This record gives sequence, C-alpha cells and structure tokens, in this order.
Amino acid sequence: MSIIVDSRNLDFILFEMLNLTDILNSEQFAHCDRAVVTQILDSAQRLAEDLYLPSAARLDASPPEFVNGGVEIMPEVQTALAAYAEAGLSAQAFDHALGGLQLPFSVSMAANGMFTAANLGISNYSMLTTAGAHLLAAFGTEEQKARYAVPLIEGRWSGTMCLSEPQAGSSLSDITTRAEPAGDGTYRISGTKMWISGAAHHMTENIVNLVLAKIPGGPAGVKGISLFIVPQRLVAEDGTVGEENNITLVGLNHKMGQRGTTNCLLNFGETGPTVGYLIGEPHRGLHYMFHMMNEARISVGHGATMSGLAGYLYSRNYARERLQGRRIGQKDPQSPQVPLVEHADIRRMLLAQKAQVEGALALCSYCGLLVDQQALADGNERDDLTLLLEVLTPIAKSWPSEHCLEANKLAIQILGGAGYTLDHPVERFYRDNRLNHIHEGAYGIQGIDLLGRKVRMAGGRGRDLLVARITETIEQASVVPALADFARQLTTALEAFQRATDASLACDNQERALANATLYLDATGTVVVGWLWLWQALVAARALETGDAAPSAFYEMKITTCRYFFRYVLPLVHTGFALVEELDDVCLSWTPEQLEFV
Amino acid sequence: MSIIVDSRNLDFILFEMLNLTDILNSEQFAHCDRAVVTQILDSAQRLAEDLYLPSAARLDASPPEFVNGGVEIMPEVQTALAAYAEAGLSAQAFDHALGGLQLPFSVSMAANGMFTAANLGISNYSMLTTAGAHLLAAFGTEEQKARYAVPLIEGRWSGTMCLSEPQAGSSLSDITTRAEPAGDGTYRISGTKMWISGAAHHMTENIVNLVLAKIPGGPAGVKGISLFIVPQRLVAEDGTVGEENNITLVGLNHKMGQRGTTNCLLNFGETGPTVGYLIGEPHRGLHYMFHMMNEARISVGHGATMSGLAGYLYSRNYARERLQGRRIGQKDPQSPQVPLVEHADIRRMLLAQKAQVEGALALCSYCGLLVDQQALADGNERDDLTLLLEVLTPIAKSWPSEHCLEANKLAIQILGGAGYTLDHPVERFYRDNRLNHIHEGAYGIQGIDLLGRKVRMAGGRGRDLLVARITETIEQASVVPALADFARQLTTALEAFQRATDASLACDNQERALANATLYLDATGTVVVGWLWLWQALVAARALETGDAAPSAFYEMKITTCRYFFRYVLPLVHTGFALVEELDDVCLSWTPEQLEFV
Repeated sequence: MSIIVDSRNLDFILFEMLNLTDILNSEQFAHCDRAVVTQILDSAQRLAEDLYLPSAARLDASPPEFVNGGVEIMPEVQTALAAYAEAGLSAQAFDHALGGLQLPFSVSMAANGMFTAANLGISNYSMLTTAGAHLLAAFGTEEQKARYAVPLIEGRWSGTMCLSEPQAGSSLSDITTRAEPAGDGTYRISGTKMWISGAAHHMTENIVNLVLAKIPGGPAGVKGISLFIVPQRLVAEDGTVGEENNITLVGLNHKMGQRGTTNCLLNFGETGPTVGYLIGEPHRGLHYMFHMMNEARISVGHGATMSGLAGYLYSRNYARERLQGRRIGQKDPQSPQVPLVEHADIRRMLLAQKAQVEGALALCSYCGLLVDQQALADGNERDDLTLLLEVLTPIAKSWPSEHCLEANKLAIQILGGAGYTLDHPVERFYRDNRLNHIHEGAYGIQGIDLLGRKVRMAGGRGRDLLVARITETIEQASVVPALADFARQLTTALEAFQRATDASLACDNQERALANATLYLDATGTVVVGWLWLWQALVAARALETGDAAPSAFYEMKITTCRYFFRYVLPLVHTGFALVEELDDVCLSWTPEQLEFV
Repeated sequence: MSIIVDSRNLDFILFEMLNLTDILNSEQFAHCDRAVVTQILDSAQRLAEDLYLPSAARLDASPPEFVNGGVEIMPEVQTALAAYAEAGLSAQAFDHALGGLQLPFSVSMAANGMFTAANLGISNYSMLTTAGAHLLAAFGTEEQKARYAVPLIEGRWSGTMCLSEPQAGSSLSDITTRAEPAGDGTYRISGTKMWISGAAHHMTENIVNLVLAKIPGGPAGVKGISLFIVPQRLVAEDGTVGEENNITLVGLNHKMGQRGTTNCLLNFGETGPTVGYLIGEPHRGLHYMFHMMNEARISVGHGATMSGLAGYLYSRNYARERLQGRRIGQKDPQSPQVPLVEHADIRRMLLAQKAQVEGALALCSYCGLLVDQQALADGNERDDLTLLLEVLTPIAKSWPSEHCLEANKLAIQILGGAGYTLDHPVERFYRDNRLNHIHEGAYGIQGIDLLGRKVRMAGGRGRDLLVARITETIEQASVVPALADFARQLTTALEAFQRATDASLACDNQERALANATLYLDATGTVVVGWLWLWQALVAARALETGDAAPSAFYEMKITTCRYFFRYVLPLVHTGFALVEELDDVCLSWTPEQLEFV
C-alpha cells in the first residue's frame, strides 16, 4: 500500500467533506471537474513514487556538498525536478494567462503533498519556486512577471526566499542587508543572508532570489524593509540568462533532517556588484512577503502533515505484517505469534496517528479551500474569508508541526528497534518534521500572531466567524445520537477558548496577556481539529445512514477516530486555556538573581 | 557553564532532598563521606569534559564501521574508555572483595551520568560492561566471578547483553538460539542475536557476552530460557585470553542516534563451535536477567534524563547570550536586541525543561537511593523496599524517556534554526534520546508491567507503600502556606490514580483492563514526579525559612518550578486516568473490516 497518499481518505476530505465540487463549478475552474482532479492526483502519485521516493533515503545519507565554492547534488534530484516541471506541475495554481494550469490551490496542495511525503529534500525546491512565482504574479510588474515569473512557473528556473540574516532570524526588524539605488532604477545589494533553502545550486539555468533589504535613508525597523528580485545570473531583456550576479556561497548548513535541500549562507555584493530589482514600492517589502505568508504557512503545516502521513502509513503496513508476541490472555508459548496490530497499545498508536494526521489534513485542506473561496469571492464575503483564514493560518502552520511530529514519534515506536535504524524511513520523517516548528515563523511567533493579533483583528470578526462555523457543526451533530456527546464536549471546549481569549484581551499588560500564547495556540488548534473531526464524523454518519456507503468500515472508523480524538486529545485543552484565562505569570515573575537558576 | 552537570542541583537532590548522608553512615560505606562523594563527582566531571565531550559530535558523524568482517572505531573511544577504567570508575559500585570501590549505586549513577551527558556513544560501552559484571557478581560461581567479572570490574574487558533475535524482540519467549550440552559441563551455542550494543569491537582484550539461549528439551516459552557466558575469545584457567570463540559479526545497524555505540547482528556457532558457560541453573536465565533489570531500567531512565539535562543546560546558556528581538511593548526598533531569555515563551521552554529534567533526576536518584537502602536492609524492611522499587522501576525507565525527550525538543526550539543544525549538540541529544523508549523493554511493555503486574504484586503492597510516602509529603506540604494548594492538587491526582488502578484491577477482561496501560504509566509517572517536586519545594521552603540558605534564588526557583509543574503538567493526568478508570475500549472494539482503515 502506498505510503505517500491514502487516496480513499483524500477523496473523502476533498469531496465528501469539503465539497470541492462547489469550487470546481465556478467559471475560473470550468476546465476542471472531479475526474480531472482525480487524474491529476493519480499522475502526481505515479511520478512521486517513480522518481522521488526511490532516492529519498540516499539523498538523506548523501546530502548536497559544498565543493570549490559551489554545490554538488545527487543527479537524481535534478532528474526528478525536471520531470515535475515537464509534467506541468510547477504551473498548477497559476492562471492560464501566465501559462498556468489554473487549478484550485487546494488541489495543487494535495498533489504537491505526495512529493513532500515521497522526498521532502527534493520537493522543497519546487515548493520555494512556486512560492516565489506566486509572489511575483501578485506584485511584480508585467515585465517582471514575463521575465522572472514565467520561467519559474515553467519550472525552468527555481526560486528562493532570502529573509534571515545571522543577527536577524525571528526579528526581521534587525536585518542590515542594504540596497543602494544605482541611479538607473536598479539597486546594488550588499549583505549576508542565512538559512536560505534551495539556493546556490546549478540544477536550473537560473535562480530567482527574493531578497529583503533596506534602502538607506528609509524608516527604522520593519517599516524600512523593501523586497528585491536578485537573480543568481543576470537576465537580458529577451530573457537570455547571462553572467553571474556576484552572489557568493559562503557555506552550507548541515541539518538534522530535510538534508536533501541546500541551506545556504550567502554574501551579496562581495565579489562585485549584485544587481537587485525592486518589487512594488520601497519600504513595503514585508507587506508583500506577508501577503504570501498565509499560503506558505499553510504549506508548511501541510508538509508536516505529509511527513506524518508517510510515517503513519508505513507503520500501519508494518504493524499488519510484523509478527511479535501474543495477545494478553494467550498463555500458550507455542501458539503462533500474532501481527503487531493485534496488540492494544499498537492500535492506540495507530489510532493516535490517524487522529493526528487525518485531522491535520482536514485542517490544511480546509484552509486550502478558503484560499480558493477567497480568490473567487468579492466584497464582504471575501473580507470574511480573509479574516477567517488569518485566524486559521497560525493554527494550520503549527498544529500539524506539533502533532504530526508526535505521530512520527509513534511510528518509530511501532517499529521498535527497527524504527530507530536507517533501514526504515520513519526516523527520517521524524527528523524532517522537526524543522516545521522553526521555519516560516517559529512556534512562539505563531502563538503571539494568533492571540496578539489575529483574534483581535477587525474587532474580533475572524474569531467570531470561526466560532460561528464551529457552532454550526455542533448544532448539526447534537441531533445525531452517536455524536451528541462529542457535540457537548466541543461546546465546553469552545467556551474555554472564549473565556481564555476574553481574559487575554482584557489584560492591559501585553506581556502577561501573551505569556502563554503558545499554549493557547495549541489548545485552539485542538479545538479546531476537534471540530473538523466532528464534521468528518457527521459526514460519515450520514453516509452510513443513507446506506449506500461503501465500504462502511471506512466511515465507521472515521467515527471511531472522532471518538478517540474527543476522549484522548480534546480534554487536554482545558489546562492550556485555564493558564491563559488566569493570566498565569510563572514564566514572567523572576528576579535577575532567580534567572540564574533556570 | 558545564552542560553535563548542574553541581548545585545534584548536591541539592542527593544531600538536601534524599539525605544520602544516612546511607554513607552505614558500615558498608564507612570509607565514604560527603566530601569523598563530592570529590568523585568532581573528578568524573573533569574526565568526562576532557576525554568524552570533545569527540561527541565527531563520533556521531563518524560512527563505527563494518570493515572486513570487523569493526573500525575512532581511536578516541578506546582512549576515553581506558581512562575511565584507569580512574577506577568501572569498579565504583562493586564490593571491595571483588576489587570494587564499594560506592553507593546512587553515587555511581550520578558519576556515570556525566559521561552519558558528555558522550553517550562512548559511555554505553562501560554501562554495559558494568551491567554484565553486576549480573556475574550476583549469580556467577566464584570461578566465574574471578575469571569473567573481575576483568570487567577492572575495565580491562567489556560486556554485552544478548537477548533479542530477528524474530524475537519484545517477545523473548520466542528466542531460538540453542545451547547444546557438550558433555564437559560447557555448552555449544548456535543462533543469531540482534540489536547487540557494544559487541564485536577490539577496544578491549575480550568481551563477555551474556547470552539467552534454550537448552533442547526444556520447557517452551520463557520458562525454557537459560543464561550463558559466551566470551568473544576463550579464556584459559589462568585468565589468559586465547583464541576466537566463533562469534561472527554479520553487520552493524545504522541508527538515528547513539551512533557511537556498535549495534550488531551476531551469529553464534557458524564458523565453528561457540562455547558457552551456564550461569546458575538451567531454565532460570530470564529470572537472572530480570533480577538485574531494575538497575538497568533505572539507568536507562537516568540516561534519558542526562540527555535531557545536557540539552537544557546548553539551551539555557544559549538563551542568555543570543540576542534576538525585543520584549513585547518595546516599539522602538532602534533599541538594542535583548537576550532570548527575556522572552516569555523562551522562559516557558526553559522552565518546562527544568521541570522535566530536574523532576526526572529526582525520580532516578530516588530509585538509586532505594537500591542502596534495599541492599543495606533486611527482613520486612528489605521486602518493602523491593516492592516499592518494583513499582517505581517502569516509571523511572519511562517517564524520563518521554519527558526528557520532550525537553530536548524544546532545547532545539530555543536555538531555532541553529538548533536544527549539527553545529550545536541539541539535535544530537534529541536523536540519542529517542532510543530510550525502545530498548530495555519498550514503553508499552513498561505500561503493562506497571498496571498488569507491579501494582498487583503482593496484594498491592508496593502501591500502598508508594501512596503512603506520597501522602506523607502531602501532609507536610499542606501546612506550608506556599505549598498548600499544590498539596491539595496532588491529593486529587492521587485519588484519580487510585480510582484508575482499582477499576483496572476489578476488570475481568485482562486485555481491556490493560488497554490504556501506557497512558496509566505516563499519568502515574507524572503523579510521582509531582510528588518529588512537592518534596523539593518543601526542602526549599524550609531552607528559605531557616534563613541560612544561600543563594536563596536557587531555592525560590525550586518553588517556582514546582508551581510550573503543578499548573502546567499535573492537571494533564486526569485525561489518562479517566480513560483507564472508564476502561475505554476505543482501541479494541474493531471488526476485521474496520482494521483495514486504521
């Protein structure tokens, strides 16, 4: 059985739960129906299994190396990326006008997820390429789109995002990379960028680096940050790629996971002038970057989900085949050993993974749907969708990063000693997944974003919209006997969310109001995923009721997993919410002397 | 500041909390007082920092390799082990009669912990050597002790434990390695052993493998397992090491962590006869092995704690030095960046690590003390100490393996992207620590051991003893105003433990009674560590009261950390206990059709 996709479940989430057909019926996606989506997903699966999966362990063991100032990468990586581009997959979510396939974001996310599950080290390159193209498509001039976005969309070039610097990671306010006007409308970029994924390789003809820098004389802090196109090699008016743009690779970082992707320290303007082209207006760089951040953050959460999924499916296959021990109560040592899956604790670990992974997949897919709905809507409806998405984005980024990492931990445990070796991929998924809480805004930053900003925006309208949607599902579930208890439990958890939020909002001391923001983020995420499980159970219950559901065991296990989530996971939220509600200051109230002893 | 020990805290736990002086006052340890202990710990620290710590990252990056049927290991490993033996540290916890230093187990554990923290890949070899020597000292004949135990105690040879086989990991009942009587009192061993740590190297003159095997004609299952000394090279009567004993190294496992330690697949009797010497009586092998298991399992928990400690101390040092961002409310982007430790969420992650690591250290040290007390006691007192230790052992093995791994996760998070690179040790600690839930009895096995066996033994006396000790601390804390709330909370948690235990004991269906044993184990562990935190806070409160406590901030932070534990961690136990009490069967009640969808 495939370890990169559970097609039955993906179909359930996209079509039975989220009703993606509604989106496909719009004019924008008139060329695309459910059959086309299925076809795209099927061919993505084939390509990922043929060209991405086989080299994953080898790429992890033989990551890119820094040789003579350049990068050496296993040739399979270039082959895989070229095949991905050749299949048109770089172009999935772009409009026809830009040469794109004009598919829903939610569909492209599902297709890309298979590459992530198969070989994250490779898929990172195309993910960054697509993200860069999206940014250019949104904010570039027509010339910039034609010259830089189109080759990215075609997958001929690749892209990077250059934000962090040695002294400025989470605190972008402190970047010092300079962009001096050259007098001809272009800029000269100088400075050092760190943690740059996907940079400095030669697998594509060119790399479009999107670089945050400060134009001298601008405002201090984040209000003085501008965004530039800084191509690896300069591009002539006709699109011809020319000489190097003086971007020096200083070195590669060696990482615990995601080892196949280059992660670079870059110097700009060290060996000669590095030319940059301003995107949009000066000093608005962070605004442009953040505009794209929602999709990027949802993608990170989705990537975490896919690493979780791969571990779940792998350990599930293993548990069905590996014989070990006997069921409790079987005292005859000469009776045959049973498959691992016969043991209650192994089942618990499988069910926990299923709850985490399929819950996270529902979360990210729902956010993907909102991205699509938002693009199709206008006026108040669009504003509402945007606000809802703003609230959900830190959750979609963080909940999978936490809980699908835990799923990977359980996958290792199911395999036992074997899971701890490089002979099986589960330990790699665990290592890969650990990054997701760090990049694209660390966990703590996401917590402050949610509690300090997102639930407060527009008078709390985003929060109200979320609560209204959750309440709607609760109402529907409360009249289904099998789900009524869960509906009550979710109501209680939602009330705890509301009290915690209100208490934080009422607190004048910002530091104290946000002291437990990370716990709030996790608990809120669990409420949201609890809602999505109730929703899934509701769809399953209806399918079972109509009687034409086949196979019924699929739907029954959706309800079982919902029960698991509500009994084993949801009750844990009350501890976190209580700490926020009570404005616990145990982490703040320290004297300098006490600080020496933590 | 050292990252392998917090001397102030270790002294607090051993002497101020556990009152180790009582043990030292016994005749057995008359040669050893508090000053001697301090001296031993100090010299262990120096040796570990000088010879173990510097090569840790390199050994992880260049683990032992399988070359021409043998093993190649970095020479620093042999140098370090030789220095450890030379310092007499292999002999710490053995009686003078065997050439040992006759130190308390609790002291040797503390000393060895520093080597674990400094370089787990190396310290595993000496840990296994000591474990083997302990087993021989307990069950070997005088001749076996002289011939095999003494060279281990002197550190001239090393040891391994050979239990698992390809088809028998957790299920030892199913081992098939044979031991045929040779007619001269010795046996011929044949079969395959897997996951053998510390085997097959040439860093010592000989290796004493302790091998579980079945003598043909014996009972089926675990009752037919015997234990053998199987030296790597045969030993003459005068102790001279002679020819190879036909133990073939088939290959090395490549692991996610603990990479410096060989982990071997071994064939016995493949290239010629492999001679084994029976320990004790036939068919009692597992009994002997399990007799030593308590200490081995406590040592695993202690090892997990030390990996957690190393990450905690490293990330604490980093958080004090690394400047990033500004406190919430500081809007001036030109104000200087502050150290990480100024941010509430960083403080929370430090405090969480402190609570986990120092709680786990108190747990393992307390168990170490019980081992010592047990050895000194007799009659009913000894029986009681044994029973209490039986109950605590699965907890001491598992709680640190879970919660100190989580501590390592937080250490990475504090360092951010840097923590995900091999430039800092925190990601290695995380990888190393992941094994501890797997070896020496997996997490699920420990849960069944606690709920299915340990709390039921001797009419539940071990459980009653534990509850009595916890209750005693609760009573003392309840009259201290600063701690009375915690005392009440612990009472409530203890009641939940009692209800859950009773419900499981009352259930006739064993499979259902134990379905949530892992959650029970974790929750019980949290109650126990909560108790130990209340105890620490009580000691701290008294020290502050007497006024001669210096520095007082040390004690204040003990109370703060206790508060953290009771507010952030202890409330979580109620979910786990409720599932056990209600005999939740969500993981059991599946049809074969449903099994296809988990």
